[in-house]
Amino acid sequence: MKATVHVTLKNGVLDPQGKAIEHALGALGFAGVDQVRQGKFLELELTETDREKARAQVTDMCEKLLANTVIENYTVEIEG
Amino acid sequence: MKATVHVTLKNGVLDPQGKAIEHALGALGFAGVDQVRQGKFLELELTETDREKARAQVTDMCEKLLANTVIENYTVEIEG
Repeated sequence: MKATVHVTLKNGVLDPQGKAIEHALGALGFAGVDQVRQGKFLELELTETDREKARAQVTDMCEKLLANTVIENYTVEIEG
Repeated sequence: MKATVHVTLKNGVLDPQGKAIEHALGALGFAGVDQVRQGKFLELELTETDREKARAQVTDMCEKLLANTVIENYTVEIEG
């Protein structure tokens, strides 16, 4: 079973990496970019076959390791 | 108009960050994790209002800056 996790910075948290990309795009001549936010994207291959158990397991992983819940939000999707 | 970009390592390209997460999950007692791959996730706010033009612009950004196409794949989604 495959799980995908998106970890994004919470609104209001400064995103220096996103700002750097925004400026680099401007320097390359791309106009019309208002904001860039960068996040992390994780693909996990799990042996768990039960959808709900897999979701609970991955949520637990996010809380304990994958996301810093003080400044980051996460979403979990289970596929297949 | 909002665009989301996923940048992932191509298959066969070593992902040390993913490996580190995999090991850390194992050390925390999470069993049954076969593989972890980490990628980047970007959210862009564009002033462009035409869907196809926005997609072309973001694809161009990926080719020029956002992804290293030698080792990375990217997908572009346009929303709203």
